[in-house]
Amino acid sequence: MGMKNYKGIVSYDGARYKGWQRLGRGELTIQDTLEEAIRESLHCNVEIHGSGRTDAGVHARGQVFSMKVPCLLSEDFVWKINQKLPEDIRLLHIERVQGSFHARYSAIGKKYRYYVDTREKQGVFLRKYSCHFPYELDWNAMEIAKSYLVGTHDFSSFTDDKSLEKEKIRTIESISIEKRQGMLVFQYEGDGFLQHMVRILTGTLLEVGQGKKAPEDMKIILEKKERAAAGFMVPAKGLFLEEVYYESEITI
Amino acid sequence: MGMKNYKGIVSYDGARYKGWQRLGRGELTIQDTLEEAIRESLHCNVEIHGSGRTDAGVHARGQVFSMKVPCLLSEDFVWKINQKLPEDIRLLHIERVQGSFHARYSAIGKKYRYYVDTREKQGVFLRKYSCHFPYELDWNAMEIAKSYLVGTHDFSSFTDDKSLEKEKIRTIESISIEKRQGMLVFQYEGDGFLQHMVRILTGTLLEVGQGKKAPEDMKIILEKKERAAAGFMVPAKGLFLEEVYYESEITI
Repeated sequence: MGMKNYKGIVSYDGARYKGWQRLGRGELTIQDTLEEAIRESLHCNVEIHGSGRTDAGVHARGQVFSMKVPCLLSEDFVWKINQKLPEDIRLLHIERVQGSFHARYSAIGKKYRYYVDTREKQGVFLRKYSCHFPYELDWNAMEIAKSYLVGTHDFSSFTDDKSLEKEKIRTIESISIEKRQGMLVFQYEGDGFLQHMVRILTGTLLEVGQGKKAPEDMKIILEKKERAAAGFMVPAKGLFLEEVYYESEITI
Repeated sequence: MGMKNYKGIVSYDGARYKGWQRLGRGELTIQDTLEEAIRESLHCNVEIHGSGRTDAGVHARGQVFSMKVPCLLSEDFVWKINQKLPEDIRLLHIERVQGSFHARYSAIGKKYRYYVDTREKQGVFLRKYSCHFPYELDWNAMEIAKSYLVGTHDFSSFTDDKSLEKEKIRTIESISIEKRQGMLVFQYEGDGFLQHMVRILTGTLLEVGQGKKAPEDMKIILEKKERAAAGFMVPAKGLFLEEVYYESEITI
């Protein structure tokens, strides 16, 4: 009996959860919740592998996971799983993929967004999905600052991951900052992001916007390779994992 | 010492509240919460008058209230009140108005919106601010149906208010239905709306969209003047009081 390999795409509101990854201490995580729904539906144990962890409170519009199951999934699998899931998690899509596909190891890139509410009064309806930062920001300074960050660098200064054995070099393909009705939307695309990296990058760019740091400081911060050199970390609730990229030739 | 009259505009997420209006049974309402913040700030008792009640769970982007206070409000009044308010209520604006102004009796019109999520899978981030209705809808039929509802009619069939002494004639100036990324946005403007009226109108229009009712049935429903003739009532969480209209000459 050959195992079938599947790729799933899932959206979630991270507010109630201790992040994606199973913690095994009775704490609520997305992975546990999703696995339980799948287990109940398929009547067998299944382990799912996410494209990466998202921290407690972080949201996703397009988190990807892979799983090997002993059977072909039925046409109404997505519907059945969504019936079992709480309404802050939705399975959006599932498809069969080549046996070698793994959500984490096959990923070639990711897109994140961070939402900042810059209005004097925090918006009532986006308060759980953005960080309130009602300060005047120097747009031009932030644009210059981000140009220092795009490219291949050692991002040790922009992570809380202190493990020495882990490679801290990443490539940021693009950073865009967009104004949308009182909100600032920071969008990051790259081959991978270290722990807290998007949130520290955003906090540092906001400090540049406030004039607390100069755009050119980005160069020095990167060179220092120490967390203390960078800016503050914005809260989890404004962060969204938008999309995970793979080579196109994975579908069977 | 003359009382000064003020007009305030407030936005709130209604999810946690038993509606706008004070109930006096220890239940949490917007009015109570707002009055308490104002009382703490001004160190005097204040009664505020809303433009109308919003039901339990209904949201507002532009609810209006009026209040008479014994003093001139300071420049930073809005800021101070927002410091005291929970973050699901924001005071957006306050201005001094003529003594005769009353948020309810001076109102000449209102705008409401109702959000319907028509995607097969309910969106995770709008689940608290819309009603999930994943059915195919006949757009044209709904457009014809709404044309029967616009104008001056006795809306007895579209309300749960059974009081015989109360006038049930209202004028709907316009109804628009707009598609926005998987959502339907119903917008209603009129001189006033009866209890549950917007939610019953929306439910009835959705039934027309589904083919359960014909567009021409609207005429018969209006004539019957009984609640049972109309369609179902959509849930509170998708309803937003957007704006309340007044004559322009109210500011001092």
